[in-house]
Amino acid sequence: MTPILSIVGCGKCGKTTLVEKLVAELTRRGYAIGTLKHDVHGFSMDHEGKDTWRHKQAGARAVCIIGPDQVAVIRSTPDREFTAFDAVKLLGPVDLVITEGFKRAGFPKIEIFSSVRNEGGLLCAADPLLLAVAGDLPVETHLPRFDWNDIASIADFAEARFLK
Amino acid sequence: MTPILSIVGCGKCGKTTLVEKLVAELTRRGYAIGTLKHDVHGFSMDHEGKDTWRHKQAGARAVCIIGPDQVAVIRSTPDREFTAFDAVKLLGPVDLVITEGFKRAGFPKIEIFSSVRNEGGLLCAADPLLLAVAGDLPVETHLPRFDWNDIASIADFAEARFLK
Repeated sequence: MTPILSIVGCGKCGKTTLVEKLVAELTRRGYAIGTLKHDVHGFSMDHEGKDTWRHKQAGARAVCIIGPDQVAVIRSTPDREFTAFDAVKLLGPVDLVITEGFKRAGFPKIEIFSSVRNEGGLLCAADPLLLAVAGDLPVETHLPRFDWNDIASIADFAEARFLK
Repeated sequence: MTPILSIVGCGKCGKTTLVEKLVAELTRRGYAIGTLKHDVHGFSMDHEGKDTWRHKQAGARAVCIIGPDQVAVIRSTPDREFTAFDAVKLLGPVDLVITEGFKRAGFPKIEIFSSVRNEGGLLCAADPLLLAVAGDLPVETHLPRFDWNDIASIADFAEARFLK
């Protein structure tokens, strides 16, 4: 089972930036990282006018394109919402899946604490799966706490916990 | 095993248009259709600046986004080229996979014959898996031949062969 680590936090606290930096650092260390994001508003992935876009517009349940070094799939999921566990299978063989968000899911998580964005403490303080906090300022917690710019230490933590 | 039907033909003969019309017609008839395309030049699926794009740029081996009614995945495949059979698994549960191209693959196929684009007959005349021809003008063949605008008849043929 591929390990999963969620980066959680309130809106606009810097989740994508932390995911981006952590992916870059762990990839540099030789790991294959998958990422997973939930978009409640829906997303548009393909480019208008491309062949796959035309297939999808025509009503295809799922479209796939294979290139020389990557493959992409877009599936409609009309019957039920796709779960993170379903998604992990789609991601294929990776060493670690980092999710952006999924704060209510039962995954080990690192919460971002932004002194500008957070009001009144951590969102997941009561979550037994909260492993650590990454923030711009110290926050009261008994958990390991990282400066959110100290990517090496956060990557060390993730590596020790999930990749060794 | 999900059945696969390839729409093949020479360059710019109208493969995407036929796939598009066939998907629309079979979807209208209540079938879940997956499509598959091969792009030898590589493709760009995501939009610059989007979170998933940032994850991939950072080096993620695979990225996935879940929306309320669709899910998308982009995977790097550095070690080996992805096969159509791998792709069929990624497409998930559908009634029929229609591929655009894959003329050398071992799938049942319908060849498009364009009097403007084809020079000297059918590409797959010798292929035992060539099931039918769809063209703008009659072409010499012992196989079923359809006017490429007669989508109802082409869909009937596909339905009888793969979906009933």
